[in-house]
Amino acid sequence: MNLTIIKIGGHVIDEEDSLQSFLSDFAQIEGAKILIHGGGKIASAIGNKLGIETKMHEGRRITDEATRDLVTMVYAGLLNKKIVASLQANGLNSIGLTGADGNLLKAKRRPIQEVDFGFVGDVTKNDVNLSLLEQLLSLGMVPVIPALTHDGQGHLLNTNADTMAAILAEAMSSKWSVTLCYCFEHSGVLRDLKKEEVIKTLSEVEADALHQEGIIHSGMLPKLHNAFRASQAGAVVRIGHFQHLLDLIAKNEKGTTIK
Amino acid sequence: MNLTIIKIGGHVIDEEDSLQSFLSDFAQIEGAKILIHGGGKIASAIGNKLGIETKMHEGRRITDEATRDLVTMVYAGLLNKKIVASLQANGLNSIGLTGADGNLLKAKRRPIQEVDFGFVGDVTKNDVNLSLLEQLLSLGMVPVIPALTHDGQGHLLNTNADTMAAILAEAMSSKWSVTLCYCFEHSGVLRDLKKEEVIKTLSEVEADALHQEGIIHSGMLPKLHNAFRASQAGAVVRIGHFQHLLDLIAKNEKGTTIK
Repeated sequence: MNLTIIKIGGHVIDEEDSLQSFLSDFAQIEGAKILIHGGGKIASAIGNKLGIETKMHEGRRITDEATRDLVTMVYAGLLNKKIVASLQANGLNSIGLTGADGNLLKAKRRPIQEVDFGFVGDVTKNDVNLSLLEQLLSLGMVPVIPALTHDGQGHLLNTNADTMAAILAEAMSSKWSVTLCYCFEHSGVLRDLKKEEVIKTLSEVEADALHQEGIIHSGMLPKLHNAFRASQAGAVVRIGHFQHLLDLIAKNEKGTTIK
Repeated sequence: MNLTIIKIGGHVIDEEDSLQSFLSDFAQIEGAKILIHGGGKIASAIGNKLGIETKMHEGRRITDEATRDLVTMVYAGLLNKKIVASLQANGLNSIGLTGADGNLLKAKRRPIQEVDFGFVGDVTKNDVNLSLLEQLLSLGMVPVIPALTHDGQGHLLNTNADTMAAILAEAMSSKWSVTLCYCFEHSGVLRDLKKEEVIKTLSEVEADALHQEGIIHSGMLPKLHNAFRASQAGAVVRIGHFQHLLDLIAKNEKGTTIK
């Protein structure tokens, strides 16, 4: 059976027109599907108004309790329910679920070492509640999952949305033919940012070489790490622009396909 | 089959200790159950910080877009997910659902007459997605439902939590033996507020008489209206203190029982 897993990030969510256009495309994908989303600028904007400081350590965010509550409000409340209501209006029976709902994803809180990153959860494919997902999919429902898990001790945890998408693809690949699509604001993994020159196919060895050359760097590195994990588990993995969603799913003329 | 439906309001939610103690009691109720919750002072507190004005017309709240987004964040995000994560820690496989999720409750937006009350949804028992609820209950899950519905056109709507509890009880009473319990900060419907003198049983005729005498008034009137609707549909209905939950469910020594 075919399953399509789509991950969207902030740029899709920040503009109402982009989001609605994307959701209309998403509703057209045939068969079983899952949508995973992070937040957008709205979380920072609301955090600023509430006086919640962004705390960083060497470029990485520290999720204190106030920040965790903020992302719970914005990701699981405002954004998730807006997406679910819009998909319902597009004729898609969607259901919003954090990792706590139905115990979908029980994570391990990241241990405190040199730094306490706070309410952050790490997940592996073994943490995915496969039977819940399969029951919901068999009822024709479309899970819409924000980047939040729980620890089973009563605490919600912030979890990287790219990683969540990858481990869901890994876990579901045991039984399903999974296509995982990372949708963002570029046309794929780029050889040249200014020309939007897309690398059509990419293996792990090629990615390492491009990293050495300085062509692939910063945020693309962990995204590719996740993409290769899902690919090794058997998923077809594509990375591309959220406006090209249907082309990315249907054929490999757009975006980057992971080899 | 027995089904217990519990509705809690702001006073339970506002104090962390009260909420955790209530959820621990709730987890002990045997059999199928559903929890319905409103918000608390936290919604107003966050609204104040965000500069969202409370707009009223003759004592009734007007839910403009900013207020609707606020309650979506706080009810469906912060509070709902906190409750779900806590119930999971209590060993209960709960799942948070607004009316949009799985199309649980499609409401009719209240028509504009003299006043536009904004994003407010009215529901009847025919709007309840019974098959979804029964599927989730049959999987051993406990739905946790904030006071939000949707219109099927992409908009979330604010809906009275007492009314939601009543129409769920009405709808489920067609097949289930339903006990509906309204939990709040008093020991039941009171004859004398200062003495906390509880009216043990109450029929609609008796309630009308007590209303004429001025003993029952203001917020208790719509709550009782909902209670009588659910009772007429076949549900056992009790009203009492959230600290007496297990006594309210098990026997009628505490609280007010609707006749």
